[in-house]
Amino acid sequence: MATQRGAYKKTAKRREEILDAAFDVFSRQGYTAASVNEIARTVGMTQPGLLHHFGSKLALLEAVLERRDQLALDILSGRHDVEFLYGLLEIARRNKAVPGLLRLYSILAAESSTPDHPAHAFIARRLGNVVGGTTRAFEEMQARGLLRDGVDPRTAAIEITSMAEGLQLLWLQGIDVDMEQIIRSHFDSYLTAPLDASFGRLGADA
Amino acid sequence: MATQRGAYKKTAKRREEILDAAFDVFSRQGYTAASVNEIARTVGMTQPGLLHHFGSKLALLEAVLERRDQLALDILSGRHDVEFLYGLLEIARRNKAVPGLLRLYSILAAESSTPDHPAHAFIARRLGNVVGGTTRAFEEMQARGLLRDGVDPRTAAIEITSMAEGLQLLWLQGIDVDMEQIIRSHFDSYLTAPLDASFGRLGADA
Repeated sequence: MATQRGAYKKTAKRREEILDAAFDVFSRQGYTAASVNEIARTVGMTQPGLLHHFGSKLALLEAVLERRDQLALDILSGRHDVEFLYGLLEIARRNKAVPGLLRLYSILAAESSTPDHPAHAFIARRLGNVVGGTTRAFEEMQARGLLRDGVDPRTAAIEITSMAEGLQLLWLQGIDVDMEQIIRSHFDSYLTAPLDASFGRLGADA
Repeated sequence: MATQRGAYKKTAKRREEILDAAFDVFSRQGYTAASVNEIARTVGMTQPGLLHHFGSKLALLEAVLERRDQLALDILSGRHDVEFLYGLLEIARRNKAVPGLLRLYSILAAESSTPDHPAHAFIARRLGNVVGGTTRAFEEMQARGLLRDGVDPRTAAIEITSMAEGLQLLWLQGIDVDMEQIIRSHFDSYLTAPLDASFGRLGADA
């Protein structure tokens, strides 16, 4: 039993090492150009040995992306209304600490825009979920009279999602932008009163 | 003399064929993964023969991007103030007709976000020029009292540029967005009166 637990721990550790190496290579080279052989060499394995753990290059990519998204999902989970907007701000704040992760995501989002790309469904669903979640949050706020006249929840959600994607790109390219502050002031432009002044944090983390 | 002109025409035609093939391969595969050999084969040349025309893969990429940008530069050239904003709307409208071109640009913009990527300087300068030109247009409008109180020209320019970049990505991923309409209504949100109602087209093409 102790030996089985030890073997499981070792496999889990190996898996994490592979995902770290895969993240590094994918974020420098993008999915198409990335070499599974290079990832395998980095962790001292052969290509067949590595693929024994993950099955395929695509499965490896999906495992890397899922690890990235788990944190964002944890932050947004169960949030509604104005709390959801605070969750988006928290993600924007945390993103500044992980430029390599942002770069990987940006490359994949652009690469995968053809329907036949292996990551297309994942990225399209992810963008759709962000637009959908933000639309619902704005609808809930509208029902409470917190949106300015003429603000359409879905249009506002598309504007915010687009802006967040584009701000990441500008920031990665070295243009000096405060992503969190710009998104926050943009939220305010949709609301009858500023985010902080009117609603407090409503349970979101500081 | 007639023979020399013929030879020149033939070279120019060859160059255009190569650029068409390069655009096609780059826009499907991105810069890093794109194969110069495949581009050469498409136009019935050898790789050394093709590189004789352009010198390097990077020079080929730059020629493709310059051809893309010439139209946008022609549209924005000499425009100021509100006319510059109409120029941006015209580019957004035309972009819908060339998804392959947008995809190439999006992939390169993401791929080139590391300073050592060969297209980094080109993309960073291009984004900087759009932010700079839009900032100046908003400053000119502010001087004429056309911006709402509290609108900062540079922040507004960064918001519009980011949103345009992000909208392209959402649209390429199959999300139903009207890029031109969203940017237009966003312009209006900065202005003391709607773009069309207040200023007319001021010389921009219909």
